[in-house]
Amino acid sequence: MAIVKKEKRVKPQLLKGFRDYSPEEQFAREEMLASLRQAVELMGFLPLQTASLEFAETLLGSHYSPDNLSELFGFVGPDEVEMALRYEFTLSLARYVASEPQLPLPFRRYQYGTVWRVDKPGPGRYREFMQFDIDIVGTTNLLADAEIVAAMVRMFEHLCLSDTFQMKMQEIDVRYSSRRLLNAFLEWAGIESERGQEVLRVLDKFNKLGQLKVIDELGPGYTDDSGAKITGLHLSDKQIDKVKEFLFQASEHGIATSNPLAWSQEHLSQFESGKQGIAELQSIRQYLADMGVSQKVADIDLLIVRGLAYYTGPVFETYLTKAKDFGSVFSGGRYDDLVSRFSGESRPGVGASVGVDRLLAALLHLNAIKKCKATSQVLVTVMDSERLPDYLRMLAELRSAGIRSEIFSGNTRNLTKQVRYADRVGIPLALIAGSDEFKAKQVTVKNLAVGAAKSGDAADRETWLKADGFQEQVERIKLVEYVKKQLERIDNKKVT
Amino acid sequence: MAIVKKEKRVKPQLLKGFRDYSPEEQFAREEMLASLRQAVELMGFLPLQTASLEFAETLLGSHYSPDNLSELFGFVGPDEVEMALRYEFTLSLARYVASEPQLPLPFRRYQYGTVWRVDKPGPGRYREFMQFDIDIVGTTNLLADAEIVAAMVRMFEHLCLSDTFQMKMQEIDVRYSSRRLLNAFLEWAGIESERGQEVLRVLDKFNKLGQLKVIDELGPGYTDDSGAKITGLHLSDKQIDKVKEFLFQASEHGIATSNPLAWSQEHLSQFESGKQGIAELQSIRQYLADMGVSQKVADIDLLIVRGLAYYTGPVFETYLTKAKDFGSVFSGGRYDDLVSRFSGESRPGVGASVGVDRLLAALLHLNAIKKCKATSQVLVTVMDSERLPDYLRMLAELRSAGIRSEIFSGNTRNLTKQVRYADRVGIPLALIAGSDEFKAKQVTVKNLAVGAAKSGDAADRETWLKADGFQEQVERIKLVEYVKKQLERIDNKKVT
Repeated sequence: MAIVKKEKRVKPQLLKGFRDYSPEEQFAREEMLASLRQAVELMGFLPLQTASLEFAETLLGSHYSPDNLSELFGFVGPDEVEMALRYEFTLSLARYVASEPQLPLPFRRYQYGTVWRVDKPGPGRYREFMQFDIDIVGTTNLLADAEIVAAMVRMFEHLCLSDTFQMKMQEIDVRYSSRRLLNAFLEWAGIESERGQEVLRVLDKFNKLGQLKVIDELGPGYTDDSGAKITGLHLSDKQIDKVKEFLFQASEHGIATSNPLAWSQEHLSQFESGKQGIAELQSIRQYLADMGVSQKVADIDLLIVRGLAYYTGPVFETYLTKAKDFGSVFSGGRYDDLVSRFSGESRPGVGASVGVDRLLAALLHLNAIKKCKATSQVLVTVMDSERLPDYLRMLAELRSAGIRSEIFSGNTRNLTKQVRYADRVGIPLALIAGSDEFKAKQVTVKNLAVGAAKSGDAADRETWLKADGFQEQVERIKLVEYVKKQLERIDNKKVT
Repeated sequence: MAIVKKEKRVKPQLLKGFRDYSPEEQFAREEMLASLRQAVELMGFLPLQTASLEFAETLLGSHYSPDNLSELFGFVGPDEVEMALRYEFTLSLARYVASEPQLPLPFRRYQYGTVWRVDKPGPGRYREFMQFDIDIVGTTNLLADAEIVAAMVRMFEHLCLSDTFQMKMQEIDVRYSSRRLLNAFLEWAGIESERGQEVLRVLDKFNKLGQLKVIDELGPGYTDDSGAKITGLHLSDKQIDKVKEFLFQASEHGIATSNPLAWSQEHLSQFESGKQGIAELQSIRQYLADMGVSQKVADIDLLIVRGLAYYTGPVFETYLTKAKDFGSVFSGGRYDDLVSRFSGESRPGVGASVGVDRLLAALLHLNAIKKCKATSQVLVTVMDSERLPDYLRMLAELRSAGIRSEIFSGNTRNLTKQVRYADRVGIPLALIAGSDEFKAKQVTVKNLAVGAAKSGDAADRETWLKADGFQEQVERIKLVEYVKKQLERIDNKKVT
């Protein structure tokens, strides 16, 4: 709290790409994290927190140079050491696992927190944001992959149950595929392996751009809406035909209603990686069915590619059906070289990561986040400072009863201003007691939520107003009881 | 999750002064944060999260230079901007308040998170650690100061109620004083105002070093245990005598059992700042009494100084009586120039900050943190992969019943290794089902907690073993019911 006095004024501004979270926004984040934690702890994932600054080498590998250090929030820190802020958790997990040889495996861990990326900031794109990762490290068993998908589903289930988010499971699309099967597809389509990654990169845009543009980009290229030229990959007509068939068959939930696994069996099982990929997906689908995870929520979609090159097996994505433009909000896959940067031992693993702030942005866009409930439920106003002992006793009673409450601690005794404060903060009830009330052993309870409801259904409000009154005199000894009832009523009416 | 392959091995190491939090440690942190949040939300504090990187100017003021940038984790980042990681929250709060002119005042907010300091690392001293701040901004009303002290008490009360921490309120010492009264003391003792800050800095060591060394440092100086020379302030004998009287009278809970307020009234009320300070402390004490906060937990102690110069009124500290060496774990005070760096408007405020990681270290030292409860309660072992559907169904049932559980997803079918995994992770129950069990429609439940109890009271364990058995055959249809009962029993016996 170092305040330096008498200096030049500093402009109160944020760095480009950074933001604050207001109480309302931060409350929603906290609620999301609490739901997610609860869901994964039920599944035996353990919390881990790693350092947010790491050796540059840890994050970038031994080939890093001062140039790529600036791709991260990297710098030369104390003791002339090159360090950087983490841009994800998996490398730190790998470092942790490599340095803990006694760790019981498989290691099921979750980690949430802030990551930093030097991306170009834009609407909804920040340089600091929160992720929530789950991983199972130290196993090639596909049960682990199924557990990750099941966890993804369960995490959404918990969010749907939360008071704060208005989501339905029908709006969640968890999709999985296998890198091996995609490799078999490339082989089947006669696409040279050195061009495979390029082709997959284009296919990855299918959900965003649609079939026509994807096919154009695989062929001669095209000019996009902004006039920019998109260079084509110039695949042959024969190759393009194969891609079209694949696109048609790949997804039950994409453009077709086919069975991608049956189609793969028929066309891709002749390739070794095809056989393996089919077996992987069959196992995962079976395990999920046995765990009671509905195919409607989590199913195979061969068009799930994941941009990154290091995935070696199953890959996962999640879309909100009503906000597909936000892209995948929860993605991951199997990686088999996790710890190899740090240790000779192989530690294959599988995991996925929720983009917490991206998911929140999508829910905000969908108007699916309810108002902050961290605000006080009651404001005790201060009319007469001689009566502070009485006000403070009310406050203590309310808090003892578990009612979120505060006393007005500002610099004014003006009652109107105090009530206005309650209204602006969103506190539904204000208690008022002056000499009249004290004489009559009563308290006036002002219901500001009724005022707020004016914008709602008028007829209903009239009824309610008549029934409950905008403000009421309550016996002092029945105060807590009355407040509790009012709060229940407000909650039921969803006025706040 | 960028894994670069085939590169030189990188040593899996942490930066100096940084650390990871293992699942057990992180679980305790999460539990602490959850308790603290609950306590302050009951009191109407709202969550805020500010950016962790700020303009260097925001943190260091307009006088900063590349030299003092390195006192922080500061660097020249993207777009050649000088930025640094926050070392506390209050400056960011000030920036936020200055940039939100529409914010309803007083603004009651809490913020927790990571801060970074380039301190010399040492045992228990890290360069990255967590703090939890509460502040009320935009008021000079002493009700706000009392609310901060009341919040400090309530936050500890919630920690004492938590399952995870074994603390008692008798072990908590919240102490408050006033800078104004300390200034009056300096005047009364005839200490020149330009030397005041120096003298207070020495008095601040009273709780740590004791009276003799403090008096020596105020006088001729002394040589400490390590042989280092501590330069004295060379106060006059008359001044030293006054300091001695003050030390004797200052604290009910220090060396004397006097009444510091009565003593102050007699000796310091002749000074303007003394009069103000006494009035401040009287008000706060009265408000706390009216709120039902016991004087045993929170009381006046004139020796609470706080090292920093910017406090202008009441100051607060908190000690754990059984771990005084850890210093104050929750401190703060009133500052009247919070926003002046950023804005012409005055925004006086008052706040306090829990050193979350310091408090956890103290509790760990006191052996007052119970074991991690995030671990699965049940491991479903996999004996026969043909029976996976059955195992997965058990798993789904357990989870639906809210029982934290996992299926062994490692690479072995070796049952002993699977049970050993459960034992090492700390999972108390392992379910085993092979052909015998399936034939008999039963499941074997192995109670590993009994094994763990071997180190406990032997006689009691014998009784329990006889009563419950180390492992038992349970009817499949009664599995969940049985597991629930076992878990209750384990919890009651506190075996885990």
